[in-house]
Amino acid sequence: MTTSVNGTAAGASGTRGRPLTRRLGHLQKPGSTVSLERGDGGLAVRRSVLPSGLRVITERIPGVRSASVGLWVQVGSRDERVEVAGAAHYLEHLLFKGTANRTAAQIAEEIDAVGGELNAFTAKEHTCYYAHVLDEDLPLAMDLVCDVVFDALCEPRDFETERGVVLEEIAMRDDDPEDLLHDAFLDALLGEHALGRPVLGTEQSIGDMDRDALFGFYKKRYTLPRMVLAVAGNIDHAHVMRLVRKQIGDRLDRVGTPVAPRSGRARIPGSRKLVLHSDDTEQAHLMLGVRGLDRHDERRFALNVLNAALGGGMSSRLFQEVRERRGLAYQVYSSVGLYADAGTLSIYAGCQPDRLGDVAGVVRDVLSTVAREGLGDAEVARGKGQLRGGLVLGLEDTSSRMSRIGKGELNYGDYLSVEQTLARIDEVTAADVATLARDLLRRPVAAAVVGPYAHADDLPSQVHEVIS
Amino acid sequence: MTTSVNGTAAGASGTRGRPLTRRLGHLQKPGSTVSLERGDGGLAVRRSVLPSGLRVITERIPGVRSASVGLWVQVGSRDERVEVAGAAHYLEHLLFKGTANRTAAQIAEEIDAVGGELNAFTAKEHTCYYAHVLDEDLPLAMDLVCDVVFDALCEPRDFETERGVVLEEIAMRDDDPEDLLHDAFLDALLGEHALGRPVLGTEQSIGDMDRDALFGFYKKRYTLPRMVLAVAGNIDHAHVMRLVRKQIGDRLDRVGTPVAPRSGRARIPGSRKLVLHSDDTEQAHLMLGVRGLDRHDERRFALNVLNAALGGGMSSRLFQEVRERRGLAYQVYSSVGLYADAGTLSIYAGCQPDRLGDVAGVVRDVLSTVAREGLGDAEVARGKGQLRGGLVLGLEDTSSRMSRIGKGELNYGDYLSVEQTLARIDEVTAADVATLARDLLRRPVAAAVVGPYAHADDLPSQVHEVIS
Repeated sequence: MTTSVNGTAAGASGTRGRPLTRRLGHLQKPGSTVSLERGDGGLAVRRSVLPSGLRVITERIPGVRSASVGLWVQVGSRDERVEVAGAAHYLEHLLFKGTANRTAAQIAEEIDAVGGELNAFTAKEHTCYYAHVLDEDLPLAMDLVCDVVFDALCEPRDFETERGVVLEEIAMRDDDPEDLLHDAFLDALLGEHALGRPVLGTEQSIGDMDRDALFGFYKKRYTLPRMVLAVAGNIDHAHVMRLVRKQIGDRLDRVGTPVAPRSGRARIPGSRKLVLHSDDTEQAHLMLGVRGLDRHDERRFALNVLNAALGGGMSSRLFQEVRERRGLAYQVYSSVGLYADAGTLSIYAGCQPDRLGDVAGVVRDVLSTVAREGLGDAEVARGKGQLRGGLVLGLEDTSSRMSRIGKGELNYGDYLSVEQTLARIDEVTAADVATLARDLLRRPVAAAVVGPYAHADDLPSQVHEVIS
Repeated sequence: MTTSVNGTAAGASGTRGRPLTRRLGHLQKPGSTVSLERGDGGLAVRRSVLPSGLRVITERIPGVRSASVGLWVQVGSRDERVEVAGAAHYLEHLLFKGTANRTAAQIAEEIDAVGGELNAFTAKEHTCYYAHVLDEDLPLAMDLVCDVVFDALCEPRDFETERGVVLEEIAMRDDDPEDLLHDAFLDALLGEHALGRPVLGTEQSIGDMDRDALFGFYKKRYTLPRMVLAVAGNIDHAHVMRLVRKQIGDRLDRVGTPVAPRSGRARIPGSRKLVLHSDDTEQAHLMLGVRGLDRHDERRFALNVLNAALGGGMSSRLFQEVRERRGLAYQVYSSVGLYADAGTLSIYAGCQPDRLGDVAGVVRDVLSTVAREGLGDAEVARGKGQLRGGLVLGLEDTSSRMSRIGKGELNYGDYLSVEQTLARIDEVTAADVATLARDLLRRPVAAAVVGPYAHADDLPSQVHEVIS
């Protein structure tokens, strides 16, 4: 029921396993199963491709008591025409409103009765429906996720009720300066390209949305070759496959071939350099940044190291310069966005309005220094350590494990174990980081501001300088 | 570096262990160690009381790769005089600014280098300093946590820099309508009592804060008998104890007796019924509620069931009536606050300003129906299921495990295993819930609103009716 942005970590983890195959998921023979990683107690990660084109990837984690199920659909806001902006997210809401088998209330009651979580999120390039339950409730989780994704009714009455809820969600985003800022920044950086539009759509597009058009979008886009089912936890691959056959067996008769991961090179029209949202906030919120790398770019590991050392932790350049040395802001950080054919590297800071000029000036100085000199060996080593630790520590719950394998399959088709990812991070050198910084940090800068400024002219000169 | 409110779940988890003792931590013989729970591979939860009065509680979790360390101090915002409101939280910031052994930058560098997390939060009744690291980095985590808590310098220069950061945090809270609303609601409900004051303090009190007074607060309050060290993960109790002796060995020579958990009965002066923060937000944000139970009240298990069924999940009364049937709000939920000698039961909703009257009316109707009739057997059963599942699913990472044992020791001294907690939930009957609802939901209601209303008179009549 929420939206999601692409996070910073490059596709991450299992634990101590070794890779067994590099066969790509979308090229794997339909009807076959392959093992991708061996774990502590046997086969840990396995993938089956069904004749229908549905891919099923599982990770068995001994010792845990839960299971996470996610159905990933390669449909997101970038697939919408501008008139129906927000359709993918609106649809995601609507699917929970009732199916051929259950009312919305029954869906909620069944998951609440076992204390599980059933939810979904929509991003620019995919939508994910997921459940997190005790291991013994895996059949119920599979049933509920498949029910909402495959058998939703999208009744006109529910469509109208849900319009109000989606409009509320837009209003809520507008009241959260950081969320609003993020959307404004992508608007500034990516201009008219579909990636630059908010996942939620606009009040206008949601107000105009037509039920039959949305239902058509559902029937056309939600096909098995566009889907990956990911399951992680105290589970067994063969058991999951039996449940898949039970839940969507008849649909599996339709023959299909998995859709390849998105890739290419986005053509992004010229964009605005600055977007200002005038708002009567206590803090001024600034995000600035450049176009970065796409997710298939091999330099993404170096980019993640650069990001960590630049603004990823308390010891990062930006945190030390802005907050620790000068106390100018409570929060300051950088982040990376990776899309199929484009990407972003951005910096956020929130501060008192009368300090915005100083903050923008310090950020600009840091970026130009790093573009010129790269980062010190110790900083790069710390950035690598930060990614290594964060990768493993971020995979303690089954939901994170499920996301790792599901998103990885949808985005790459290629399985990368945690060990392999760690090895790729280890290979990054200070020279790689310096070369990349020299390239990226000299690209044109776009910026967005949310704060108490009526016009762009009211912004401090340093904000204008950073984008000039 | 953040503030925290008391959450909803009654002290939770371990996994399959059985309790070995009910000895209270603050009455345990100094210099002794007891085992509290046996787990899958031997002793799982153990507690030592040192001659200094420091309590150390650990949970060994086989199969994980990480460790979480938390030093819990029985000092919070309720211990502040009104003139120094925010002192506990300001101090928590200051302790990271440098110690006798490390500069602030070195502290940040050492934790970032291993990809760990080092942070702290301040609540009304306690402050917690914690680290989450790979298991092999446990000695570093213990070293860093102990260094900032015991050896901070609180230099006047850093004190001034950090004042700006804390003021930024207040401004950030003011830009987050839900956070602001929460503080306003406690102000409305608990009036002049220290529990009703914001943890962050005010611009005034932070602006006036004096370095020497804060340093005095530190030296007086941060004593070993007020502290619990909790460690969970792939760790061994004896190893932890060796590290404790190494890190704070000399301090252990001072003899002390653990301070008993807070308890009693708060005398809360009469309070305002309504607090309005006029703000130019897109949504109107409403929180209303009553004084509830203290954390020692045996009815707290029934309260958690009531809370779950009333507004805890998608199938709850409030979610169904407000969002699903009528689409009036995106978010609506209830929550429980448990303090040593007081408590709250509250309801939140965010909606378009022109729907606020309808939302308040629906909430009022739901509350009066539940006060009169209680909840159905199926709803109570679902509420119990929700708590059971949520309890176990919420304990997958070592940080949650560490919090469970640390907070439990500080708040109760009495160890409750997950199995025992589950048993207490199971015992709750629909009649218990109905009796409690009849009592609590007829208490005087206080409310807070953040939204585009200049005066209380501008609020819809239903808001005034709900508190009348």
